[in-house]
Amino acid sequence: MSQPTSLATRNQALPGPFAELGRERRLRLDCGVELGPFTMAYQTYGRLNEARSNAILVCHALTGDQYLTGENPVTHKEGWWHEVVGPGLPLDTERYFVICANVIGGCMGTIGPKEINPQSGKPWGLGFPVITVADMVRAQLLLLDSLGIEKVFCVIGGSMGGMQVLDFASRHPERVFAAVPVAAAARHTAQNIAFHEVGRQAIMADPDWCGGDYYAHGKVPSRGLAVARMAAHITYLSEAALHRKFGRRLQDREAVTYGFDADFEVESYLRYQGSSFVERFDANSYLYITRAMDYFDLAAEHDGVLAKAFTNTPVRFCVMSFTSDWLFPTSESREVVRALNGVAADVSFVEIESDKGHDAFLLDEPEFWSTLSGFLTGSAEILGLRTP
Amino acid sequence: MSQPTSLATRNQALPGPFAELGRERRLRLDCGVELGPFTMAYQTYGRLNEARSNAILVCHALTGDQYLTGENPVTHKEGWWHEVVGPGLPLDTERYFVICANVIGGCMGTIGPKEINPQSGKPWGLGFPVITVADMVRAQLLLLDSLGIEKVFCVIGGSMGGMQVLDFASRHPERVFAAVPVAAAARHTAQNIAFHEVGRQAIMADPDWCGGDYYAHGKVPSRGLAVARMAAHITYLSEAALHRKFGRRLQDREAVTYGFDADFEVESYLRYQGSSFVERFDANSYLYITRAMDYFDLAAEHDGVLAKAFTNTPVRFCVMSFTSDWLFPTSESREVVRALNGVAADVSFVEIESDKGHDAFLLDEPEFWSTLSGFLTGSAEILGLRTP
Repeated sequence: MSQPTSLATRNQALPGPFAELGRERRLRLDCGVELGPFTMAYQTYGRLNEARSNAILVCHALTGDQYLTGENPVTHKEGWWHEVVGPGLPLDTERYFVICANVIGGCMGTIGPKEINPQSGKPWGLGFPVITVADMVRAQLLLLDSLGIEKVFCVIGGSMGGMQVLDFASRHPERVFAAVPVAAAARHTAQNIAFHEVGRQAIMADPDWCGGDYYAHGKVPSRGLAVARMAAHITYLSEAALHRKFGRRLQDREAVTYGFDADFEVESYLRYQGSSFVERFDANSYLYITRAMDYFDLAAEHDGVLAKAFTNTPVRFCVMSFTSDWLFPTSESREVVRALNGVAADVSFVEIESDKGHDAFLLDEPEFWSTLSGFLTGSAEILGLRTP
Repeated sequence: MSQPTSLATRNQALPGPFAELGRERRLRLDCGVELGPFTMAYQTYGRLNEARSNAILVCHALTGDQYLTGENPVTHKEGWWHEVVGPGLPLDTERYFVICANVIGGCMGTIGPKEINPQSGKPWGLGFPVITVADMVRAQLLLLDSLGIEKVFCVIGGSMGGMQVLDFASRHPERVFAAVPVAAAARHTAQNIAFHEVGRQAIMADPDWCGGDYYAHGKVPSRGLAVARMAAHITYLSEAALHRKFGRRLQDREAVTYGFDADFEVESYLRYQGSSFVERFDANSYLYITRAMDYFDLAAEHDGVLAKAFTNTPVRFCVMSFTSDWLFPTSESREVVRALNGVAADVSFVEIESDKGHDAFLLDEPEFWSTLSGFLTGSAEILGLRTP
């Protein structure tokens, strides 16, 4: 594993390894720009076996990060998948070597708009090249190279993580045995692009955004980013979950106040979601990563025929969706399954009954966990995987 | 009909009559404030018959106004219900006397935060009292009084208009024969409150909002209001409609630009929706009217039992919803119908098949129009309505 390099000095406050990638062979992005050398921050859990065959690559979602379990050093909360990754859990760290890296364009140590552009000595800001999901995956492959992992046992992720899974399996089938896209889609829909555009416009409308150069002005477009997060957060839940959690209950009061304070619990909750988010996330990263999702359309480069993205695939797939997810609804997962069936791929599809909406993959969903466990265990047997 | 008064001098640029209301008896609002005298701007279409029995009161939605048909003097587009109101149309102006008033709290001539507070000689701004849907209806009743109309033949409206219809029928059943709530609900859900809160936060995050006093500073919180409108606009459409209208089509370009311009048609469309809205709507009105909708919960003052809001109602109801409306879904209309059935009210319920989402009641929906026509014609026969 690489150690923190000079490029990563700003990130040394974050615990965990940093890989310096793209030094010998630069990363050619879809936009044409070549990136390198660059830093990628990641975490690993469990041990790599001797055959280097038990790695699971976890791809995180829009606002996720590499800290899957244990205390997150920024939020000081449990890692976002602490119920899934660990000894005896579905991603069993006694059997598998679990890797998760902050995506390029992110803000948790990997190269992104808030990091220093070595050519200027200043943060990249909007000078950072626009990236795609395919670029994120290419960076993950460079990381795997640096770790000496030729082929991962499994690549898994929810939401944008699931987009990376699909891209990985489509473009690099020789480097993965099994793929688990969860609550994902092979393209971003018009409605999802629309919600992202609202978020971006909210950020760019904030005068403190300073045309993307707020770092130089010692400012943070907190208000815009908070509004973006609030709008997005609604789309991660379901109407039923919001009703169950909050309904029309009032926040610490007996009656409405006839004013614009947060009378309702749901308002108070949303405001908290917005204000806590700006403490951990970079506004420009939000622009770049949402853009990458908007651009994602796996069928587009195959004449619009998604099946062609998986022709002759040797990868075993387990596609999962949640009934109440309206951001990445089951119908989108079915499109993926249909395409995979169209090329006679090895694919299981499970729609999990849940009222928790899109965020269900992050929450307490035993049926999801047991399905995941079963698929991984079965796949490990087929591969003849040895535990360390 | 009253003529424009001194209170209405700012509005004299707007065509149409203005009523001066609440002079003898002030309007007592739910928040306890008494309002009056105040101006209400309205429009009428068709002729009132001698018995004064053929009036239809149309209640407009959040961003609607009194200009139902003909050229809107502000947008210079056709009125928002020009396909529904007119000779031979469902709200047949050869048979009915159609009235539509700008709601209190609005910004099209009726008293609201941008109008002058006579006590200070300055715009009300956030000094305007917080209003409720019930207050809006009370103001409509004062207008009906001033027009000499004891009882309307029908009260009808979509979305917030439908909330007014339900409130009107519940609180003032002696003043209405038939009621048509369309794409409405008897309470605002947690998800809908959440979306409204995002919009309000976007407006209040804009420094040009100036704590609500932007009028005095010669500013307009355009960016915040545009973001609010963009977020709301998505909720008015359906995923299917967005897909059909825009899909992932690019805006006047062959390929994505790897930037943050509006690459996709849906982005360009949303930006236009935002920027054109700020030219016609007052940001503070947006705060007040969304708040009124959030507060709406007809069952709340009846121990949570919606049926009790309609005990012994003599009103004939026709409840309508649209299959793809996810903001005011059919389930909410069914709640209303269930409550009405519970008190053996005269109620028809029609769910219209449409992929146009919540906005379907504003759009080309022949099945909606024919149902509406049929219900009005039938009700007119039962009432023995004479045409003028």
